[in-house]
Amino acid sequence: MNTTPEVTARTGVWFVGARGSVATTAVVGAHAVAHGLAPTTALVTELPELRPDGLPPLSELVFGGHDVSPQSLPKRAEELAAGGVVPPAHVDATRAHLEAVDAEVRPGHATGSAPVAEAVERLAADITDFRDRHHLDRVVVVDVASTQPPVPDPDAMTTVDDALPVGAVYALAAFRAGAPFVSFTPSPCLRLPVVVEAARRSGLPWAGCDGKTGETLLKSALAPMFVMRSLALRSWTSVNLLGGGDGATLADPEAARSKTVAKRSGLDAIVGRAVPGPMHIDQVEDLGEWKTAWDHVRFDGFLGTRMTLQLTWEGCDSALAAPLVLDLARLVAAAHAAGRSGPLPELAFFFKDPVGATEHRLAQQWDDLVAWRAGLGA
Amino acid sequence: MNTTPEVTARTGVWFVGARGSVATTAVVGAHAVAHGLAPTTALVTELPELRPDGLPPLSELVFGGHDVSPQSLPKRAEELAAGGVVPPAHVDATRAHLEAVDAEVRPGHATGSAPVAEAVERLAADITDFRDRHHLDRVVVVDVASTQPPVPDPDAMTTVDDALPVGAVYALAAFRAGAPFVSFTPSPCLRLPVVVEAARRSGLPWAGCDGKTGETLLKSALAPMFVMRSLALRSWTSVNLLGGGDGATLADPEAARSKTVAKRSGLDAIVGRAVPGPMHIDQVEDLGEWKTAWDHVRFDGFLGTRMTLQLTWEGCDSALAAPLVLDLARLVAAAHAAGRSGPLPELAFFFKDPVGATEHRLAQQWDDLVAWRAGLGA
Amino acid sequence: MNTTPEVTARTGVWFVGARGSVATTAVVGAHAVAHGLAPTTALVTELPELRPDGLPPLSELVFGGHDVSPQSLPKRAEELAAGGVVPPAHVDATRAHLEAVDAEVRPGHATGSAPVAEAVERLAADITDFRDRHHLDRVVVVDVASTQPPVPDPDAMTTVDDALPVGAVYALAAFRAGAPFVSFTPSPCLRLPVVVEAARRSGLPWAGCDGKTGETLLKSALAPMFVMRSLALRSWTSVNLLGGGDGATLADPEAARSKTVAKRSGLDAIVGRAVPGPMHIDQVEDLGEWKTAWDHVRFDGFLGTRMTLQLTWEGCDSALAAPLVLDLARLVAAAHAAGRSGPLPELAFFFKDPVGATEHRLAQQWDDLVAWRAGLGA
Amino acid sequence: MNTTPEVTARTGVWFVGARGSVATTAVVGAHAVAHGLAPTTALVTELPELRPDGLPPLSELVFGGHDVSPQSLPKRAEELAAGGVVPPAHVDATRAHLEAVDAEVRPGHATGSAPVAEAVERLAADITDFRDRHHLDRVVVVDVASTQPPVPDPDAMTTVDDALPVGAVYALAAFRAGAPFVSFTPSPCLRLPVVVEAARRSGLPWAGCDGKTGETLLKSALAPMFVMRSLALRSWTSVNLLGGGDGATLADPEAARSKTVAKRSGLDAIVGRAVPGPMHIDQVEDLGEWKTAWDHVRFDGFLGTRMTLQLTWEGCDSALAAPLVLDLARLVAAAHAAGRSGPLPELAFFFKDPVGATEHRLAQQWDDLVAWRAGLGA
Repeated sequence: MNTTPEVTARTGVWFVGARGSVATTAVVGAHAVAHGLAPTTALVTELPELRPDGLPPLSELVFGGHDVSPQSLPKRAEELAAGGVVPPAHVDATRAHLEAVDAEVRPGHATGSAPVAEAVERLAADITDFRDRHHLDRVVVVDVASTQPPVPDPDAMTTVDDALPVGAVYALAAFRAGAPFVSFTPSPCLRLPVVVEAARRSGLPWAGCDGKTGETLLKSALAPMFVMRSLALRSWTSVNLLGGGDGATLADPEAARSKTVAKRSGLDAIVGRAVPGPMHIDQVEDLGEWKTAWDHVRFDGFLGTRMTLQLTWEGCDSALAAPLVLDLARLVAAAHAAGRSGPLPELAFFFKDPVGATEHRLAQQWDDLVAWRAGLGA
Repeated sequence: MNTTPEVTARTGVWFVGARGSVATTAVVGAHAVAHGLAPTTALVTELPELRPDGLPPLSELVFGGHDVSPQSLPKRAEELAAGGVVPPAHVDATRAHLEAVDAEVRPGHATGSAPVAEAVERLAADITDFRDRHHLDRVVVVDVASTQPPVPDPDAMTTVDDALPVGAVYALAAFRAGAPFVSFTPSPCLRLPVVVEAARRSGLPWAGCDGKTGETLLKSALAPMFVMRSLALRSWTSVNLLGGGDGATLADPEAARSKTVAKRSGLDAIVGRAVPGPMHIDQVEDLGEWKTAWDHVRFDGFLGTRMTLQLTWEGCDSALAAPLVLDLARLVAAAHAAGRSGPLPELAFFFKDPVGATEHRLAQQWDDLVAWRAGLGA
Repeated sequence: MNTTPEVTARTGVWFVGARGSVATTAVVGAHAVAHGLAPTTALVTELPELRPDGLPPLSELVFGGHDVSPQSLPKRAEELAAGGVVPPAHVDATRAHLEAVDAEVRPGHATGSAPVAEAVERLAADITDFRDRHHLDRVVVVDVASTQPPVPDPDAMTTVDDALPVGAVYALAAFRAGAPFVSFTPSPCLRLPVVVEAARRSGLPWAGCDGKTGETLLKSALAPMFVMRSLALRSWTSVNLLGGGDGATLADPEAARSKTVAKRSGLDAIVGRAVPGPMHIDQVEDLGEWKTAWDHVRFDGFLGTRMTLQLTWEGCDSALAAPLVLDLARLVAAAHAAGRSGPLPELAFFFKDPVGATEHRLAQQWDDLVAWRAGLGA
Repeated sequence: MNTTPEVTARTGVWFVGARGSVATTAVVGAHAVAHGLAPTTALVTELPELRPDGLPPLSELVFGGHDVSPQSLPKRAEELAAGGVVPPAHVDATRAHLEAVDAEVRPGHATGSAPVAEAVERLAADITDFRDRHHLDRVVVVDVASTQPPVPDPDAMTTVDDALPVGAVYALAAFRAGAPFVSFTPSPCLRLPVVVEAARRSGLPWAGCDGKTGETLLKSALAPMFVMRSLALRSWTSVNLLGGGDGATLADPEAARSKTVAKRSGLDAIVGRAVPGPMHIDQVEDLGEWKTAWDHVRFDGFLGTRMTLQLTWEGCDSALAAPLVLDLARLVAAAHAAGRSGPLPELAFFFKDPVGATEHRLAQQWDDLVAWRAGLGA
């Protein structure tokens, strides 16, 4: 942890969006779990199948990051406690640590605020400086910034120019700094030729996109059931009610489109054809950090008998995302240590729209993940 | 089909409960699908992974069975059509066939109606007579009778005596007749020493117990998600509202206990500990052939954040069960043809309480099934 | 009924949209109830509080109407039977009657198909011809056509010209023919100055708009509970999934806007302020004649405690609307017989957007209706 | 409030179960609202229709009570804050006040702990002592203790003897002390002849039974909708999942029966016949202070069309009950001041099982309440 600067092998976690809900919850939670204040619930990398002993321990993660917001992590943590996302006691216990992490946050890059080529250099320098000052073996960059709109013509984005979306700028900076990169937010960046080429040349491992935390997680567990039982999915309607932060971003229809595309594609891939049905993402201010999703599934059984399944999922996105972010940082760090490079399709388990992978069924993704982890050794 | 008596290799399907909803739906459906009147929806054995070409074709299944009810199959089919379970057009198209099958129904055995040893002989003779008259290669006996209450001291049931539950009597008759046996109903029969011993000596294959058609199917698809994501299941409440037939049987608390035990055990096995929460099976007369299940799942996420999932499943049990019964008849017939004997744990995919198997996760059960099917050849 | 032409006092019911689902269900149902084939379920006017003996009996209603569709009522009735809306037996029993009603259907008016002034004359002549041929005391015109889009500047519509929306053309024709008018569909027509003025001059009674059949009905029963208990509604989200007919119309966002405006206004009026929350109306083709609505209600209790209520309503719009249409025809006919004129705010019980009324609470609307009915006498 | 001992006219509120969740929430909330720390949400008596200016102000209520538990109110309040029922800030702000109220709690009476006649005297003396020491105009006794089991033969309970249920003992003590009595808990006490006779002789007003806080509240708002629309209720299934306190009590099937009887009777009274359907009350430990109720309503529409409504209510019973308890104390105090005596059927709005009333429809109960309040004057 930041508060115990040692010189032994430690791993840096550099958040794009370091003062947001997900990063703050991750920092509070890593500290709470490492100090025995909270159980390891929701940390996939603490399951025996993923052999946690060979991964960077939570207590040796050092956090920093970029953010365009001036609001400090301790302040954000208080808001999360008030909203019921993290227990107030954990925030109190982590305050000094949060302040130390906040001191490691550098100004983020906003579209148009600087020429992109210049921004990449500046952001990369922030990352290398962080690595050097803390004597870190490596730094994994994890993008947990807000949802970013899709790009009109991604294939045309072949050079570093000012039209690049902001997520791509961070990805280029990570590769420039020699840091593995994880895109946890809905963002087109990992599919742009200029980013793919930079990634390739860097020889680094990378993973994404768009963390699978709620309704899409459910779909990836349930849709295969219909397929295996040969039940005919006639429609799948999805309604997502989001409060505060992410909800506000998604009130921008362009950004929402980025997310709904990712959400749909998995279902269609599992079923092997397009399943009709509306999908809504709505901001409902008073839900705060919470999210309610309602799914209505119409399917036919034997001889066309009409049946339905309804699901209501009530969760807290930050609490669902934060442990996965820690899992990904640990796994990608281990992949880097093991000399892996390129996209990591075996991490599809964590993503709505996995780069390099076509498998969307959760159980198969889990098998792939476990086998891959075993192959990493340690 | 019964209406086209050939001498080539055909397979008999002998239902215990031949005039009930499940058997009647299976007979109507096999005919409708075989004649191209209905799609293969819900027939697992028609999926390419199960290589349907090597299995007995639906058009070559010959049906008969035992029942204690005097109500004819055509009459039952009309009721099912009125209740929305099968399309009226299919019943009209199948009437002659239903009458032919009804002519193959022999009186069933009711507890106390005859000494058990005598009943076994009589029932077995009905089966062999059916096989001989139709020149069948083999007959698979499938128990789709009503839910049967659990037995107080199953281990003490080591001999053929009059205390045996009715399901055991049918199982003994099947083995006596050289017929593979499938227990699709909640029944303790396949766990009684006297039945297990008779099965062993017969050298026949057998499978059970309790078809996984609705809420338990959902659990076997969803509970692994919580485990893989290390989310802590705090309670799982299940409420099942059933109409007519099965609902009435389950209003008998003893019979209901047989079913709730089977339903619970899978969840606990998947999670690795007992998950608390009430389970109810209620008869709600006006639901007719339909069933509504509501599940309320409370789980903790990272740092103990409280979340919930609710499910409402509205289905028709007969329409869910009937295709699985056909699948099992085909698969067990193929196993018999391939010389397999003993319990078939690889058919766990179809059961709430699979004999010989400990795997309850649907995706793994599917993988086991597909691999086993491939190993059968043909 | 049309099939028993008498000369005693009978009442005509003239449907705009006579070959649609609602009108067809109303015709089948009136016949089935009048002949004792079906109970009076869902007919409000058969409740003792509304003194059915003084209203036109169902058996003396004579049906006709306008429609732009060439598909016959018997054909439509068969589709409704196949879709589970009306029992097939009722359709069989009503076939001759449906054919007789179908013979009374005249070509409807489509926007632009004829000058509006001319269309009004032609449509009015159809109505008076119907009244004369059947020696009817009166004819009530009921608009059950598809949802019509809102009008950009309703206040500017002061003269009979070709810009008038189609619903207004029918209303003008009804008044021209001396027939009371009921607007059961979402339509702006009863609020246009030219229609209001024609209605006023006619001295006829009229009622509308937009039948309250499902989710809005629930809101008008439930929202007062929150108000009476001083619970603070923070958001009310409504999702409506509609199949076939009405769903297709509402896929036109302009038409949908007409409906969502009507749906929202009642809730806000009951609560006394705008309650936030998204409202969706989606077409989900495979739902056929059925509709599923999901409402998510967030409210605060004492000391700001956060609570929620979720509702899932699964109904059949035609079956919900048809009896109300018969109720309205009977009540408006009775009002006409009693010499009432102008808008009938006491019929607000039946409408999402009641003309002349500000009361949206269901229980109060009921009290108003009962008192008004008592005041009519007979 | 206790902390500001004045000599002007003040009202005492004496809780049976003074250290339980409901009483504690009421004390915290009255203080928070009176001091402007919380809005008046959920306090019915703060609505203008109930003319709050003529009722005892929240700031002048003085609290005390009986309890068998030694756990202090401040401790209980902390638990409620941890469980998300009351904001921690309010507990902090009320601590001194809670301690003062806790000092006014006297030992409760447990069945068999003392002869009943003796207990009545002792409990009554506690109440009069409280009234005298605080110079109160009057004290309203409100029973918010745990659910009490029904009595086998209530009509036989005509004398003060040791077989009396505990709620009856408190009621007798209240009347003995000249204090109006409110039974807010499911308890048979107000229907026992010995209690009714004591109440009559006391000339005091009284009200009950069983606060209508959740699912039954919903039913009383919704069931009239089905009746007014002549929709045929075929079944109404209710499932209540309760955590901690009340859940534990209700795990006792006898106590649960007391509650389910009260819950059912209102629905049947509204519909005018018994509506079938199971009702469950289950303890689900991990729900803590929260409650989830699921209702499944099957109804027929026109021509027997089958439709359903499902409801999921997620609330906090203490937060729902506490404001009603304050409302009742204020209203019953005002009734006493106005010289009313006997049962108060106009308070049926607040109860599942209203004494002296047959009206269960919420809207009518509201009208009755408002009219009665107006009649009290002031």
